[in-house]
Amino acid sequence: MAAITVKNRQILLKDYVTGSFVESDMTFHDGTCLLQLQEGTNDILVKNLYISPDPFLRGRMQKRTNSYVDSFVPGSVITGFGVSQVVMSNNPNFSKGDFVTGYTGWEDFSVIKSSGFLRIIPAIGFPLTYFLGVLGLTAYAGFHEVCSPKEGDQVFVSAASGAVGQLVGQFAKLLGCYVVGSAGSNEKVELLKNTLGFDEAFNYREEIDLDATLKKYFPKGIDIYFENVGGEMLEAVLNNINVFARIAVCGMISRYDSAEPYSIKNLHLLIPMRAKMQGLIATDFSHLYPEVTERVGLWLKEKKIVYIEDLIEGLENAPRAMLDVLRGKNVGKKIVKLSDPYTSLEAL
Amino acid sequence: MAAITVKNRQILLKDYVTGSFVESDMTFHDGTCLLQLQEGTNDILVKNLYISPDPFLRGRMQKRTNSYVDSFVPGSVITGFGVSQVVMSNNPNFSKGDFVTGYTGWEDFSVIKSSGFLRIIPAIGFPLTYFLGVLGLTAYAGFHEVCSPKEGDQVFVSAASGAVGQLVGQFAKLLGCYVVGSAGSNEKVELLKNTLGFDEAFNYREEIDLDATLKKYFPKGIDIYFENVGGEMLEAVLNNINVFARIAVCGMISRYDSAEPYSIKNLHLLIPMRAKMQGLIATDFSHLYPEVTERVGLWLKEKKIVYIEDLIEGLENAPRAMLDVLRGKNVGKKIVKLSDPYTSLEAL
Repeated sequence: MAAITVKNRQILLKDYVTGSFVESDMTFHDGTCLLQLQEGTNDILVKNLYISPDPFLRGRMQKRTNSYVDSFVPGSVITGFGVSQVVMSNNPNFSKGDFVTGYTGWEDFSVIKSSGFLRIIPAIGFPLTYFLGVLGLTAYAGFHEVCSPKEGDQVFVSAASGAVGQLVGQFAKLLGCYVVGSAGSNEKVELLKNTLGFDEAFNYREEIDLDATLKKYFPKGIDIYFENVGGEMLEAVLNNINVFARIAVCGMISRYDSAEPYSIKNLHLLIPMRAKMQGLIATDFSHLYPEVTERVGLWLKEKKIVYIEDLIEGLENAPRAMLDVLRGKNVGKKIVKLSDPYTSLEAL
Repeated sequence: MAAITVKNRQILLKDYVTGSFVESDMTFHDGTCLLQLQEGTNDILVKNLYISPDPFLRGRMQKRTNSYVDSFVPGSVITGFGVSQVVMSNNPNFSKGDFVTGYTGWEDFSVIKSSGFLRIIPAIGFPLTYFLGVLGLTAYAGFHEVCSPKEGDQVFVSAASGAVGQLVGQFAKLLGCYVVGSAGSNEKVELLKNTLGFDEAFNYREEIDLDATLKKYFPKGIDIYFENVGGEMLEAVLNNINVFARIAVCGMISRYDSAEPYSIKNLHLLIPMRAKMQGLIATDFSHLYPEVTERVGLWLKEKKIVYIEDLIEGLENAPRAMLDVLRGKNVGKKIVKLSDPYTSLEAL
C-alpha cells in the first residue's frame, strides 16, 4: 500500500541566533511528509497538537562553544516539548491514537526515534496541555526535590507568573511557606497576589534597588530562591540569603537572549551562607511522574491550586510565541496549539 | 592576690582595608594584660601558641555591605583560628595547661568568652599545629560531605598546594579518583606531582587559556571541583563540568583582595549540567571531629598522606604571613608560631 502524503508545515531555524532573538530567526516551511515508518525501527509517527515555546530553547539556537547541549542545526526544524497523538507506531509501548507528551518537532507530523522521554498521557480528566506544565516535573521536582522546603521557609520566586513560577509559589504556600514573587508588569503582580495566593509580589521593572526591595519583602532573609531569571536579580538574592539557603537554578532567562550577559559578582557569598545552588532539568525526575500526577492532580481537583495558561493558536505563530516568552510578555504557561486530535487517518 | 601583669603583644586592624591588603593595614601593639578572669563568667584565659593566617580573614577586614559576617573593628585585635594553652579557666570543661584549638586573638594572651568552637587537643602524638590543618575539618568535610565523591571521579583542586588543597587532593587519591591540581608556581606543581601524589598539576600563571588547559587535563570532564580561588578558574571549570558535577566552594581567594572582583559569566551552565555549587564552613561539621581524628590520624601514621606546613616564627610577622597567603606565596599550610607552651605561671 502506498504511503499517504500529507501537508507538513514546519518551523525551521534560519541560522544561529546572535544577539536578541527576532521572529525572522525562524522560517515557516510549507512542506509535505509521507505517513510511513521505516521498517526495522522502533520509530513512532505522531501528529503534534501543542508545542511549548520554552525559554531554554533559546540556548539551542546559538552555536555552542561547548558540546554539552546540542545546538539546533540551521535549516532544521525546531524541537521541544509538546503534546502529540500517535499516528503510527513501530514501538509496542505506543499505539495509534495514544496521546503522548515528550520531545517533538515544531511541525504537524514528527517521527520520534527515541522514545526515552515520551510518555502516554493518562486519561484522568485534565486538559492535554496540563501535561506540559502543571502536571509536568519542573516546578514540582525543582521545588520539592532541589529546594528541600519546609514549613515556614521564606521563599522567593522570580518570573513568578510564568509557567513554572506560578506553580512553585503555590506549592510553597501549600507547604506553609512565606512566598514572594517578582514579575515584569503590574498586571502580573496583581495576579500573583489576588489569584495565585502569593503573600507579596513586586514588579521588578519598577524597582530601582533590587537589593533593598528584597530586604523589604524578606525581613527574615531568603531560605529558598527558585531561580528563573539570573543576572541582577540573582545578585540581589545572594545579598539576602540566609545560612543554608537553597537556590534551585531552573532558568536564567535574562541571559539567554542577551549578547552581553550580566555577570555575577557576589557568588562568594555562598561561602559564609553555606548556601547551595543547583541546576535542574525536569527529565531527571521522571520517576516522580506518578507522584506528580496523583498529588498535583488532587490539588487541581480540590481547587487548591490555580493554573494559568496563555494559549495561542497556529503553528505559524510559534516564533511570535517564542519571542513573547523571551520578553516576558506571556502571562502563565505559553502554549501553541497546532491542531485538534485527529479522528481518523483519512481526516489527516 | 593581686593579678600578675604580663606583656601582651597584639596585631590590630588599622582601618578597613580597601583594595589590596598591605602589611601596614595591620599595626603591632606592644601592650600588657592582667592575668585574671572576671568572676561570674565562663571565660577562659589562654596563651596563644600558633595562629592561622587564613584567607577568609581578608573578608572581615573590609566594611561589609551586609551584616552576615561581622567585620573586624578598626583598632581591635585580629581574631582567627589558633592553637592556645589554657592559663586560667572559669569553664569547668577546660583546665589550666590544656592545649586547645578554636577562635582566638592575634596576641600573646586572649580571653575566650564563647567556648562554642573551642576544643581540647587530644594527646595522640601529633604536632599541635596539625589541629589547625590536616586534623581539622575543612578539607575532610568539604570533600567527603559536600562533594559526595566516589571512586573514579574526575577531581580538580585549585590552590592545590595550599592548606586545604593539598589534603583534598590526597583524600581524593585515597578514594581512587583521578586528581589534577592547579598552583601558582612550577615549584608547587612539582610538589603536587612528586610529593603529594596528584595525577597531574599545572601552573595556572603559565596557561593562556584555562578552558583549553582543563580540557587537556580532563578529557572525561570534571565531576568534582574543590573551589579555592574563584574568578576565571571557576569560569573555566564551569565550561568543563560533567552532568551532576559537585562544586564545593571553600574559598574564592582571587576576589578577596581585589577592588574589582572578576565576575562569573557562565553560571547558567549549572542548568544543563544539573550541577551543584555549595559553600562550606568547617565549623558546621564539628560532629565529624572524632571521625577525622581517627581516619586522618591513621592515614598520617601509615604515611598514606603527607602534610606540608609553612611555618613562620613571631607574632610580628603575622601581617607578612597574611600577605603571603593572599598572594599565594605560601607552600602548604601557613602557620605563625607565637610561643612555645608555658611550663609555669611564673615563666609567663
